[in-house]
Amino acid sequence: MKKKETVAVVGAGSWGTALAIVLADNDHRVRLWGHKEELMKEINEKHTNEKYLPNISLPTNIEGIPSLEKALNGVDIIVMAVPTKAIREVLRKIVAFQKTPLTIVHVSKGIEPDTLLRISEMIEEEMPANILRDIVVLSGPSHAEEVSLRHPTTVTVSSKNMEAAGSIQDLFMNQHFRVYTNPDVIGVEIGGALKNIIALAAGISDGLGYGDNAKAALITRGLAEIARLGTKMGANPLTFSGLTGIGDLIVTCTSVHSRNWRAGNMLGKGQNLEEVLHNMGMVVEGVRTTKAAYQLSEKYKVKMPIAKVLYHVLFHNESPKEAVDELMARMKTHEMEDLVNVLEDRVNE
Amino acid sequence: MKKKETVAVVGAGSWGTALAIVLADNDHRVRLWGHKEELMKEINEKHTNEKYLPNISLPTNIEGIPSLEKALNGVDIIVMAVPTKAIREVLRKIVAFQKTPLTIVHVSKGIEPDTLLRISEMIEEEMPANILRDIVVLSGPSHAEEVSLRHPTTVTVSSKNMEAAGSIQDLFMNQHFRVYTNPDVIGVEIGGALKNIIALAAGISDGLGYGDNAKAALITRGLAEIARLGTKMGANPLTFSGLTGIGDLIVTCTSVHSRNWRAGNMLGKGQNLEEVLHNMGMVVEGVRTTKAAYQLSEKYKVKMPIAKVLYHVLFHNESPKEAVDELMARMKTHEMEDLVNVLEDRVNE
Repeated sequence: MKKKETVAVVGAGSWGTALAIVLADNDHRVRLWGHKEELMKEINEKHTNEKYLPNISLPTNIEGIPSLEKALNGVDIIVMAVPTKAIREVLRKIVAFQKTPLTIVHVSKGIEPDTLLRISEMIEEEMPANILRDIVVLSGPSHAEEVSLRHPTTVTVSSKNMEAAGSIQDLFMNQHFRVYTNPDVIGVEIGGALKNIIALAAGISDGLGYGDNAKAALITRGLAEIARLGTKMGANPLTFSGLTGIGDLIVTCTSVHSRNWRAGNMLGKGQNLEEVLHNMGMVVEGVRTTKAAYQLSEKYKVKMPIAKVLYHVLFHNESPKEAVDELMARMKTHEMEDLVNVLEDRVNE
Repeated sequence: MKKKETVAVVGAGSWGTALAIVLADNDHRVRLWGHKEELMKEINEKHTNEKYLPNISLPTNIEGIPSLEKALNGVDIIVMAVPTKAIREVLRKIVAFQKTPLTIVHVSKGIEPDTLLRISEMIEEEMPANILRDIVVLSGPSHAEEVSLRHPTTVTVSSKNMEAAGSIQDLFMNQHFRVYTNPDVIGVEIGGALKNIIALAAGISDGLGYGDNAKAALITRGLAEIARLGTKMGANPLTFSGLTGIGDLIVTCTSVHSRNWRAGNMLGKGQNLEEVLHNMGMVVEGVRTTKAAYQLSEKYKVKMPIAKVLYHVLFHNESPKEAVDELMARMKTHEMEDLVNVLEDRVNE
């Protein structure tokens, strides 16, 4: 018999709620925190979260708690499922009251613009050592909607402390939700963050009506540029061939569930960024990540053509059509030159 | 000005016809051979091939020729676009009359069961050296329907003689159809052949209603098993991260145009193999390739779980649901063990 834990899930969006369902299915006691009182009431009384997971009944062992302090009271594992933009703010609130050490499982996907920090680095910056036991990242091809329907899903957990990763693997693992470990924290975080940029580009290509051949080319080149940057930042290049690399990239670029793809699709159809963000009504992580990736490519002197043209589309009004046409035309003549760079960068470390 | 050639395209299915369009767009004279007189007449009189490329007007510089000997008369480049199963038979007909050396561009995707030969090896076996100049393989993420609509498409050409590959690159390259080179013939051929197996598996998963998360996991694992086998057979592992590897795998597993995906989808929905093949009415390369891959995994002692369970589904009536459930459950706990094998196999060469 596995140990039953009390776990606080911080963030009641679609992913936080879906992961709360997985934990509840495993008979853990789940406290789901969100700042909207109305939503917490809906969770406790109707056992639904209609805005973020329509038509799903939540297990009754998920309790919505509108006070962050009460949600964390006596808990030693929390799942951080807030948008990258909100992570520091929420962590500061936790630091203000937390006395005992926490294992923080973070499930967000992004890189902070300007500081260029990965999420685990942001957490390390904000949390004093006396209240931070371990940081574990959970990532992989996993649309929240499908997880909440108990469709088969595979994810990867990673941590500097692989014992902690193993405990989190046990916490989430069940028949439908398969959890694997990988010690490469940098690769797991970079793959998860940067795939959103490629999904925006794939959405633009689809919005322009370019079809599956063009999209497959963009995804292939996208993987190469993610691997080039990630390897330069210290990741294991093999991670990008795994669930948190190509797996997550595929699901994000080809599924109608993907917000970043949907946002790109609207851009390709002629809407500008402001209209798109207004129409989405949810966070589109890829937009901020594009800025961060553009800055990272400059810092590490790594060629990232997709991130670069997307940066100009999003922030300098370049035409999406010209951007994608440029990408399709400018590949090197010898395919391997692009790919070999990945390993060369590694050798030059 | 590029040199204008006369090129014979052998095989008037969807892919042969789409490539004939690319060549015709580049102002080459194109002779398109098929054994059905009726179809050749349709091509010459109506400039259509309604069965294989519905609603597409063919350029008038494509001439349908029902005699193979006449189609090849005076030509020194031919594009072989017949199903893998028919290649030897068609080559033997060519050998019977051909006097001058040919460059053969092959665009089929398969491995011959029992002999376990790649397509270029089959061509080498059948063609005497005096009438065989070079063999070039053309492969990549390229649905025929989209190519015929001039949607942006990228492919790779490869040959033992990279000068020959360069000429074929020039022959096909245009604004919409981008052609790259890669010297790794083995990797290009293996990636193209084996992706059809994974597409069958992905189709089964979709037919079972398992969703995008499960499919992304299958594709990720599929790429790893293709790379493991290919590397053992002498391919460059990087090729599997390129257009003819992951690129083609994505397009075949996620697009409604894909025959192999559609066949898998019918299997997942409960039809048996015989019904599926009858309902498709076109060649499903992945079925024969599954048998070949199963044999290759035994010969090279490489673990290929997807090919193995698919072999049992197709040829020994295993239940598709049990097969996919088994695949989802049996991944190694540590993701990297699966991936690292790719490089280990390479080091052990």
